[in-house]
Amino acid sequence: MPFQCPVPVNSHEAVTLGHGGGGRLTQQLVSQILLPCLDNPYLRGLHDGAVVSFPAAERLAISTDSFVVDPPFFPGGDIGLLAVHGTANDLAMCGARPRFLSMALILEEGFPLAKVAQVAASTREACQALGIAIVTGDTKVVQRGKGDGIFINTTGIGEVVSEAEISPKRIRPGDHVLINGPIAEHGISILSVREGLSFQTELVSDTAGLWPLVESVLRKGGDGIHAMRDATRGGVASVLNEAAEQSQLGVVIEEEAIPLREEVRGACEILGLDPLYVANEGKCLVFASPEAGAAALEAMRRHPLGKDARCIGQVVEDHPGLVRMQTGLGGSRVIDMLSGEQLPRIC
Amino acid sequence: MPFQCPVPVNSHEAVTLGHGGGGRLTQQLVSQILLPCLDNPYLRGLHDGAVVSFPAAERLAISTDSFVVDPPFFPGGDIGLLAVHGTANDLAMCGARPRFLSMALILEEGFPLAKVAQVAASTREACQALGIAIVTGDTKVVQRGKGDGIFINTTGIGEVVSEAEISPKRIRPGDHVLINGPIAEHGISILSVREGLSFQTELVSDTAGLWPLVESVLRKGGDGIHAMRDATRGGVASVLNEAAEQSQLGVVIEEEAIPLREEVRGACEILGLDPLYVANEGKCLVFASPEAGAAALEAMRRHPLGKDARCIGQVVEDHPGLVRMQTGLGGSRVIDMLSGEQLPRIC
Repeated sequence: MPFQCPVPVNSHEAVTLGHGGGGRLTQQLVSQILLPCLDNPYLRGLHDGAVVSFPAAERLAISTDSFVVDPPFFPGGDIGLLAVHGTANDLAMCGARPRFLSMALILEEGFPLAKVAQVAASTREACQALGIAIVTGDTKVVQRGKGDGIFINTTGIGEVVSEAEISPKRIRPGDHVLINGPIAEHGISILSVREGLSFQTELVSDTAGLWPLVESVLRKGGDGIHAMRDATRGGVASVLNEAAEQSQLGVVIEEEAIPLREEVRGACEILGLDPLYVANEGKCLVFASPEAGAAALEAMRRHPLGKDARCIGQVVEDHPGLVRMQTGLGGSRVIDMLSGEQLPRIC
Repeated sequence: MPFQCPVPVNSHEAVTLGHGGGGRLTQQLVSQILLPCLDNPYLRGLHDGAVVSFPAAERLAISTDSFVVDPPFFPGGDIGLLAVHGTANDLAMCGARPRFLSMALILEEGFPLAKVAQVAASTREACQALGIAIVTGDTKVVQRGKGDGIFINTTGIGEVVSEAEISPKRIRPGDHVLINGPIAEHGISILSVREGLSFQTELVSDTAGLWPLVESVLRKGGDGIHAMRDATRGGVASVLNEAAEQSQLGVVIEEEAIPLREEVRGACEILGLDPLYVANEGKCLVFASPEAGAAALEAMRRHPLGKDARCIGQVVEDHPGLVRMQTGLGGSRVIDMLSGEQLPRIC
C-alpha cells in the first residue's frame, strides 16, 4: 500500500494565502502535512537552513529544477515523483550520487490540501527509493489566478563518485551513443491526459530515478564513460544537438535502433509529434568509448530500467555540430534542435 | 553606474513559451541574457548540474527560498536582489558563509525580456558584493495567466564557519536579544507601491546581504552566540515566537528599545499594521549570552548594516513558549504568532 500522510486532510480544505504567511498556518501545513511525510533529522531542525556533514566528498554536484507540469497528476506519476527524479537524475548525469534535496513549493490559493499531501507522499516514496533526504524547504502561496495549482523547485546536492570528469568536452570521435530504453513516454502520457485521448494500452510516464543504473554504468565503463545527459524537455534530439555543439563533433544515429514502443509511435502519429523531440523522465544518453560502451550496455541491460537499452549511433568527425539520422529507407536527414515549443509544461 | 546586460534587449520583446522549451530559444535566453550577467567558470559548463570543490568544509549549510514578491520591482530593490539576499541570509543564520547559489526562474509568457535582464543584473550585483557564485540554473515558462511575471527560487550552499551550533536549542535564560537596526522597512516599501501611497521621504526596502555583519558577530561573540534568525515574513514577532517555542523559554522585549524609523511608524499607523509583524529583508535577531551579546552589539554597530543595532530584550524562564512586550506606558502584552496572513507575497 502506498504511504499516506498520517494526518487525515479534510477533502474540502484548500490552500489559503495564510499558509504562505510564515505564521501559524504555515507551521500547521509544515508540521501536519509535509514533515510527517518527509521526516528526517535534518528537516526536523526546522531552521532557516539545514546543516549536513559531507566528510568524504571533495567534489559536490549541484543541480536545480523547477517543475510546472500540467496536469500535476498523470498516468505513471505526479509532480512530486518528477521533482525528485528530475533533479536526482541531473546529479546522476554529473557522475554524482544524489544525497540531499531542498524542496520549495509555490502553491496557488484554493489548491486542495489533500493534493499537497498526495504530492508529499509521492516525494517520500521517490526519496526513499533513492536514499535521498529532503533537508530543507520553503512554502509560498500566490493568489488565485497568479499561479497554477502547484509548482515545485528541487535543488540537489550529490557526491561526485566518478573519478573522470563526465562532460560533453570529453566526447571523442568513435564514441558509442547508448540509451537505456524506449523514448517519448513521459511527454505522450502528459499529452494524452491533456487532450483527453485514450489508447488501448494506457500510456504511462517513464519517470524514474536513474542513479542505480548510472552507478553500474560508471562502475563497468570506468573512465571510458565520457558524457551523460538525461533526455527531458526537448527530447533525445536536443541532447544530441547539445552534445554535438559542445564537443564540436558530429553525431550519427540509426532510426531503426531507437527504442520506441508501438503504442507510443502510434500516439505520436495521431498527435503529429516527432518522438525524438518528446520529453522523457527516465531515459539517459551515454557517450562512451567503444569498449566502455559495450560494458556499459551490458550493465544497463541487467538493470530493470535498462532492459531495452540500445546503442543508437556514434560520434563522428564529419559535420561538426550536426546530428544526422540514417533513416530506415537508406536516406539520411539532419535532426535539428527544437526551435520553438512543441509541448509546453511537460515537466 | 550599475551593471547592465551587455546584449541590448529590444524593449518590446517578451518571454514566449518557447523560452522554456529547452531548445533554441531557451539557449538564446541563457546565452544572451543570463550568462553574460552571471558568468563564472561553473555556470559556463552549461551542464545539467555544476561540480564544485569544497575541500575545507566538513559541514555544509543548505537553504532554499522561492521569491514571489509582488511587485517584482520596488523602492530599494527588486526580486533579483531579494533572491540572493534572502537565501544568503538564511545560510548566514546557520553560521555559514554563503558560497554557491542555484537560480531557477519561472517566467510568465509575455513578461518583458528587458525585465529579465534587469533582474539578472541585480542578481549579479548582489552576488558580487557577497562573493557568491551562481553555479547552476533552470528556466521554465508558464502560459499567460498561470503565473505572475517572474518567480525565482534560489538554493544556497554555505560553509559552516561557526564551531558551536547556532540553533534555538542553545538559547538560555538570561540571553540578550539583539537586532541590527530599524524594523518593518521592507514590508512598508512593498505596500507603499501596491497601495500607491507616497510619503515625504521615500520608504525603501532594507534588503541586504547580512553575512559580513554576521561574520564579525560570530568572531566577537564566539560560542556565546546561541541562535540567529532573520526577521522576514511574519516579522520580528514570528521569529521571537518561534524561538520561544523551540527553546521552551520565555522572551521579554521592551517596546521602546525596538528601532523603528518615524516615517515607517507613521506608514504603519496609516495602513493599520503592527510593525512587529511586518517583513524585513536585512534584519536579524541574535540570541547571545550577556557577555557575548555585549561584544556582538559592539561588532554590529561598527558595521554599516548595524549602526542602529540595539539590545531589545532578553530570554527568561517565566512563561515558556510566550513572548511578552513591556510597553511604553509600563504595561505588558503578549506578542502572539501571526495567525493569518497580514501581507501576502512580500518576498
